[in-house]
Amino acid sequence: MQLYDINGPEDIKKLTIPQLMELAQDIRSFLIESISKTGGHLSSNLGAVELTIGMHYVFNSPKDKFLFDVGHQSYIHKILTGRANKFGTLRQKDGLSGFQKRAESPHDPWESGHSSTTLSGALGMAIARDLKHEDYEVISFIGDGSLMSGMSMEALNDIGSKQKKVIIVFNDNNMSISKNIGGIEKRITMVRSSKFYQHLKRDVKGGLSKNSVGEGILNGLVTIRDHLKHEVVDGGFFQEFNIDYLGPIDGHNLKEIITTFEKAKDSKGPIVIHAITKKGKGYSFAEKDTIGKWHGVPPFNIYSGEFHQKTPATEKSWSEVISATLMDLAKKDDKIVAITPAMANGSKLLEFQKQYPNRFFDTGIAEQHSVTMACGMALEGLHPFISVYSSFLQRAYDQMNHDLGRMNLPVVVGIDRAGLVGDDGETHQGIYDIAMLRNIPNLILSQPKDAKEAQDLLYTAFVSQKPFCIRYPRGNVRYTKKEEYNVIPIGSWTKLEIGENPKSIIISYGPDVDRIVHSAKENKKEVLVVNARFFKPLDHDMLDYLFKLNLPIHVYETDCKIGSLSSAILEYKNEKDQNLQVIGIDDHFVTHGSIRSLRIQEHIDISTLFGELEKDE
Amino acid sequence: MQLYDINGPEDIKKLTIPQLMELAQDIRSFLIESISKTGGHLSSNLGAVELTIGMHYVFNSPKDKFLFDVGHQSYIHKILTGRANKFGTLRQKDGLSGFQKRAESPHDPWESGHSSTTLSGALGMAIARDLKHEDYEVISFIGDGSLMSGMSMEALNDIGSKQKKVIIVFNDNNMSISKNIGGIEKRITMVRSSKFYQHLKRDVKGGLSKNSVGEGILNGLVTIRDHLKHEVVDGGFFQEFNIDYLGPIDGHNLKEIITTFEKAKDSKGPIVIHAITKKGKGYSFAEKDTIGKWHGVPPFNIYSGEFHQKTPATEKSWSEVISATLMDLAKKDDKIVAITPAMANGSKLLEFQKQYPNRFFDTGIAEQHSVTMACGMALEGLHPFISVYSSFLQRAYDQMNHDLGRMNLPVVVGIDRAGLVGDDGETHQGIYDIAMLRNIPNLILSQPKDAKEAQDLLYTAFVSQKPFCIRYPRGNVRYTKKEEYNVIPIGSWTKLEIGENPKSIIISYGPDVDRIVHSAKENKKEVLVVNARFFKPLDHDMLDYLFKLNLPIHVYETDCKIGSLSSAILEYKNEKDQNLQVIGIDDHFVTHGSIRSLRIQEHIDISTLFGELEKDE
Repeated sequence: MQLYDINGPEDIKKLTIPQLMELAQDIRSFLIESISKTGGHLSSNLGAVELTIGMHYVFNSPKDKFLFDVGHQSYIHKILTGRANKFGTLRQKDGLSGFQKRAESPHDPWESGHSSTTLSGALGMAIARDLKHEDYEVISFIGDGSLMSGMSMEALNDIGSKQKKVIIVFNDNNMSISKNIGGIEKRITMVRSSKFYQHLKRDVKGGLSKNSVGEGILNGLVTIRDHLKHEVVDGGFFQEFNIDYLGPIDGHNLKEIITTFEKAKDSKGPIVIHAITKKGKGYSFAEKDTIGKWHGVPPFNIYSGEFHQKTPATEKSWSEVISATLMDLAKKDDKIVAITPAMANGSKLLEFQKQYPNRFFDTGIAEQHSVTMACGMALEGLHPFISVYSSFLQRAYDQMNHDLGRMNLPVVVGIDRAGLVGDDGETHQGIYDIAMLRNIPNLILSQPKDAKEAQDLLYTAFVSQKPFCIRYPRGNVRYTKKEEYNVIPIGSWTKLEIGENPKSIIISYGPDVDRIVHSAKENKKEVLVVNARFFKPLDHDMLDYLFKLNLPIHVYETDCKIGSLSSAILEYKNEKDQNLQVIGIDDHFVTHGSIRSLRIQEHIDISTLFGELEKDE
Repeated sequence: MQLYDINGPEDIKKLTIPQLMELAQDIRSFLIESISKTGGHLSSNLGAVELTIGMHYVFNSPKDKFLFDVGHQSYIHKILTGRANKFGTLRQKDGLSGFQKRAESPHDPWESGHSSTTLSGALGMAIARDLKHEDYEVISFIGDGSLMSGMSMEALNDIGSKQKKVIIVFNDNNMSISKNIGGIEKRITMVRSSKFYQHLKRDVKGGLSKNSVGEGILNGLVTIRDHLKHEVVDGGFFQEFNIDYLGPIDGHNLKEIITTFEKAKDSKGPIVIHAITKKGKGYSFAEKDTIGKWHGVPPFNIYSGEFHQKTPATEKSWSEVISATLMDLAKKDDKIVAITPAMANGSKLLEFQKQYPNRFFDTGIAEQHSVTMACGMALEGLHPFISVYSSFLQRAYDQMNHDLGRMNLPVVVGIDRAGLVGDDGETHQGIYDIAMLRNIPNLILSQPKDAKEAQDLLYTAFVSQKPFCIRYPRGNVRYTKKEEYNVIPIGSWTKLEIGENPKSIIISYGPDVDRIVHSAKENKKEVLVVNARFFKPLDHDMLDYLFKLNLPIHVYETDCKIGSLSSAILEYKNEKDQNLQVIGIDDHFVTHGSIRSLRIQEHIDISTLFGELEKDE
């Protein structure tokens, strides 16, 4: 079957099982071929081929709603809904998105990119459906990593409570983005493989219930796992959430998949289908991968499995620079520990893990927990470093504020993939962290312009004993290991003068600083370039100096404009100029007391305002 | 025993059980007496008396670390650690905090205020302890509401995985802040009361195991719930997380508590003690409360149970104004639904729940899930209203950005308790939401100055079909029900001129606007007062007009200064003045594509900067 000819799911509903199996093979070849050219998410899609075919065979998209959790494994869904011919444009500007996208197809009723949102979305849809007395299925396709994140568990708890019909296709490849880690995961694996499970399944089928004591016990089991109508004694985790369970099934056996999906269709309440799959299925390099190397890939050579993108020998990725420095510092300071929420490979912490297995902590997709756990560690004298992608740190705003900032603890937060990330689009652009974090008292926010400064900043962060964030972008940077680290004065900026008689001031940060210097030299522009390596605190002395120069000032940032560096500079400038006279709460946490007393304490009572008015006359 | 005489836990370790029971009674009387004068958290403390005494009897604070989840139930702990004499100052400026506070006592090793942080904190401490080869216990005291929040479940999953010794005192009063809601909670209640549990417990003790088939099954049960060394077949939820379980025990039976805590002390890995308690125990008004009225209370009359704070007949709380309006709008629009993360009473949604039980959704303490569930509802045509306290909305920054803002969905978010809240202190001050949310594209952010405007704004929000936030403070406001609603143009401000010849402009928002007008009149100040009822978008026409007046402008806000209204105005003013020339990403989400192509698309490439430099010469 030509995949380009598939116009929609109706084209596959008429196929026989052997034909569907052939289709699965065609899709696999297509995915490998196509992604080898464009790059993209490979392993998770290879693992989801049969399940997605089964979904389209049994259910009726777009009437039935398919929500792919995270969405990076929705490529097969895209192929089966008439989008195969666009795969050449995958993740390119104006091309096919790497995730579900409502504007792309009526078969995409949901959008995500961050994990663990579909169960909440699905429950919301199911509630709406029932209130409107409509009749369709809402299906969340979710992996083990996403399922174990807090947000998913909140949703599971609520789905179990409200008993709305949501179908959860639990794609269990025993490997979240880096690898499986959680307690539940261990339990599920245990149950899955336990002899007891096999044994009891056989017993129940065989005739345990003929025996009267056996029957009593069986009834008892049924009371504990009270909705077990289909298979017996498993899925304890879901049962605890009061959600029905089918499985485990072989997620690559189309016949079993179709039979089980049909059962799920008949069920009344929420139900989970637990499917065991092999991530990377059908492509040996990806199948053998245990660290997530083949999760998201650049273009590659199909036969050798080599990535086309090569890092030049003199360069390292920013993540590598940070992790290499961390390992160096950890040599001398045995209190340093590293934490990652399921990003060991992406954050380049695998070497650290190897070197210091007892000081390395993968929490799973659990940004909230990670940040607050680091606070607990800091309180008891460890020196935690936590590495989080900028856009995922959005999940931990409250923990950065309520736990880290408020308790003012020495935790170093590495904000990886800061700034534009490109291919992954809206949900992954790391352009909000400065604005999001700048309002939190006590935090230090910084970004190095080069690898040398990155090494010194990380050193400084540990020396500072403060909540210290260092952001760094996706991509590579020239790297030489420093022999000796220097403390960078917190809040200090530096300036680089190009020419003798600068006409303009450019304030920027990160790798753009050197790019600007380079461009200025090339273009023979006389400019004063300022490396604003701290967003908080600002370098007030430098700013005072710059303001006095009376030259045009350009603030060049590549993050969201609202609330970021330019906004911080404007606030400071206004404090000096008093262009606007501002009354508001200063940059610290406000203790308890009556609102009235606090307004006075914070100098935000109306008398203070009227005192200011006096000056206007 | 005089409670004031208790200097620390050592004073109670020598008491006999009957003496401890007497102490429990003394503490209850003290709590009721003291809180009746100061206000504070009553019910939860009354329910925690024996458990807290038991903790101090068995464990050794401050060597052993006691982390009270949320912390509002730590009053007994404060009494037992020498702070009884300070209860007259509870939650007053410079007085005793209503939560644990490190500065207050070495017995407070943790601080919180938001729920569900202690398990993460405890795991962090336990990891630190083990790495340092030290020997002490880390104990989290946590209620059922807190336990079911996503962050707690992330921590449970990680605790179960890492198998660090953390003791979890699970204080199950079957009632989170409003009431119990989750699927798990239902299961726990079911198991607790199920005949099967009673039956099996008896059977096991009685001799089921004498029967060989029974023994086979029992072994099977033990394989599933594999660490069940202590009691049998319960705590399935915790077992699924690979955490040992003791209970359920009677949380008011000191003997049982002490025995069980001692068992927990002996255990090697993480362990839960499941204690059933009665919230409000010992004070009949609080015991009978099913809606959370006695959770946090103002001063009250002990004998009549009446609160001293009375709302004048012409006033309502802001929450009531919003919920009354919501109910009115819901009459005409059957698509309107209301969502609360466990705040039905605080947000005054109980009437809505009564009137529209099918359109009311309590998600438990699950802000993340709530916001994203609302997105699912909106996608399928409902008109969701979600009410969240400002400081708790911090838990859902990512969902506000990634789900609501990015998908640009018609969800109305009521941000309750915005601004200073007073008594509850640092963790509850709702002063960050403007700064936190302002960077999110597509959101509309607003605050009414009075009840009339509140009603119109809520109406406008539903009419707008946009993601629309309305913030409102704690406290009361004069209220008359509007007969007819008016649409307020989005982004429009209003002005109120006091006097004929204003000398100053004051830009403010919320109830302060009328306070300022009132003060101006009283002080005979001629001023132009502007009601900046939208933080996003701003009223550019009004600002242009104001700037032209060439009068001193005062921005009066009672929220965190960084990133809030004044900052927004400065950004706009700078756009006009070009005092700083700013390059950065505009207020919209950035799609996928190569970083290079996106920099050009967003006009943030270096050529754009150098184009701007041309103008400087």
